[in-house]
Amino acid sequence: MAIVGAGLMGGSLGKALIKAQACKEVRAVVRRKESARETLDLHAAHVADSDAEKLLRDADLVVLATPVRTIERQVMDLGGFMKPGAVMTDMGSVKRGIVTAMEDLPLHVSAIGGHPMCGKETSGLSAADADLFLGKTWVLTPTARSGNHATELARDLATAVGARVVIMDAEEHDTIAACISHLCYLLASTLVAVAEDTAEDLPDVWTLAAGGFRDTSRVAAGDLTMMMDIIASNRDNVYAMLSRARDRIDRLMNLIESGDEQVLRTELSRVRERRSAMFRNNGRARSTREQ
Amino acid sequence: MAIVGAGLMGGSLGKALIKAQACKEVRAVVRRKESARETLDLHAAHVADSDAEKLLRDADLVVLATPVRTIERQVMDLGGFMKPGAVMTDMGSVKRGIVTAMEDLPLHVSAIGGHPMCGKETSGLSAADADLFLGKTWVLTPTARSGNHATELARDLATAVGARVVIMDAEEHDTIAACISHLCYLLASTLVAVAEDTAEDLPDVWTLAAGGFRDTSRVAAGDLTMMMDIIASNRDNVYAMLSRARDRIDRLMNLIESGDEQVLRTELSRVRERRSAMFRNNGRARSTREQ
Repeated sequence: MAIVGAGLMGGSLGKALIKAQACKEVRAVVRRKESARETLDLHAAHVADSDAEKLLRDADLVVLATPVRTIERQVMDLGGFMKPGAVMTDMGSVKRGIVTAMEDLPLHVSAIGGHPMCGKETSGLSAADADLFLGKTWVLTPTARSGNHATELARDLATAVGARVVIMDAEEHDTIAACISHLCYLLASTLVAVAEDTAEDLPDVWTLAAGGFRDTSRVAAGDLTMMMDIIASNRDNVYAMLSRARDRIDRLMNLIESGDEQVLRTELSRVRERRSAMFRNNGRARSTREQ
Repeated sequence: MAIVGAGLMGGSLGKALIKAQACKEVRAVVRRKESARETLDLHAAHVADSDAEKLLRDADLVVLATPVRTIERQVMDLGGFMKPGAVMTDMGSVKRGIVTAMEDLPLHVSAIGGHPMCGKETSGLSAADADLFLGKTWVLTPTARSGNHATELARDLATAVGARVVIMDAEEHDTIAACISHLCYLLASTLVAVAEDTAEDLPDVWTLAAGGFRDTSRVAAGDLTMMMDIIASNRDNVYAMLSRARDRIDRLMNLIESGDEQVLRTELSRVRERRSAMFRNNGRARSTREQ
């Protein structure tokens, strides 16, 4: 199998597969020749090279692990190198554009979209972690080019590194991701931006910020290039979620202004119950569907 | 010394003072007689009773550890029981109303506002933790009734339980708290509310929510009665911070709609740098002023 891109995601996948001894050979396609050595040193691949054609032509499985818009281009650029019967999947955070690109692949290549729901606020190969996928949800988004073989191989990949698979269509994935991941990032970023504004007059903002602020703003320190790609690729959904958040903030402002504590309390209480219920089960979100 | 209210804050303070052997006697004023036994069993006080007058009349230091609006009432109700030279302080999350109430105390009582910047999403005495204040910031807000003796005694209290003291006026505290604590809560709550809306059509929202969502939404599970009190007592500042957040979201929506990636990237990048810088120093916010 070959992983294209040896950043946090690709590097972690390589390390996890080697640790689990799940593949005969893990190959990494790196952008710069110099990264090959680091990839090997970190046991993120058995073979690493910048020559994609050489590494991909006899691979049974190819996993694209670059930023979303790069994946959208690479599907077609690299699909031509793949042998008949080979399977392509990816680790991109937005799925519609990638699935659409996969449906234009040469007929001899199968493909299924993939997105492991995990991350870190540190990025790059040096942050790669063999346990990154342990207990996490790995979404698979089928395409017109996904036969049973592609689906089963992608499922084997995810379960080999400890993830649990959920299958859904790309449209549904992108809407959900816009809410729980992309809006999450933008609200965290909004909190830090307001704190920065406030700190212009009151620099002690940074002295007083405690654990609650730290947790709520953590994802705002995530990888920016990845996030810019995500926002651009999932623009309609991200915009819609921001609009819902703005409506909600408007409603809170109206309730606070009018002093209607009973309604405000009822609404905040519903949210509180929901949040408390969510992670009761061992820090894991309640699952409505696992496959 | 006497602590009024044996919830998370009061209970943790009692446990911490007993653990540090910082006081000759720690007394807890509890609301219901039945809570007295639990308070003693958890080593949160040496003496516990619902009779405030009995416990307060010869105390050197009285700490009010009830919700903000209760403290505002108790300052005057309980101040009358205190002996000449005794000091009153509190642990409330909003300070202007409390400081104003303290300035009306009988002349023989000194008083200084206090707010330890820490919390938990679980509340109540059973969640009390002797290490809750360790390494945290404890804000003191002086009043017209704060002499050197009151300030030093309150400082000794905070440092005895491992906190570091920052002195500022109540106005400044309340503006900063509205940003880093109250807005923080309301944005976390907004994220969960949007997820709940989204889950009406797409219940897999809860299946896919991962670590980023968990951290960003954590504070939304906090104690609601305390939060309702906070919002009501700090209404003007909370409203202003929500308004800043809404403006920021409007700006993000405009940038996403116009597709101006360069400006969006620059703005998100500044926030990212700020957030990364904040907690570099051992998970603690960079301090600009410690006293």
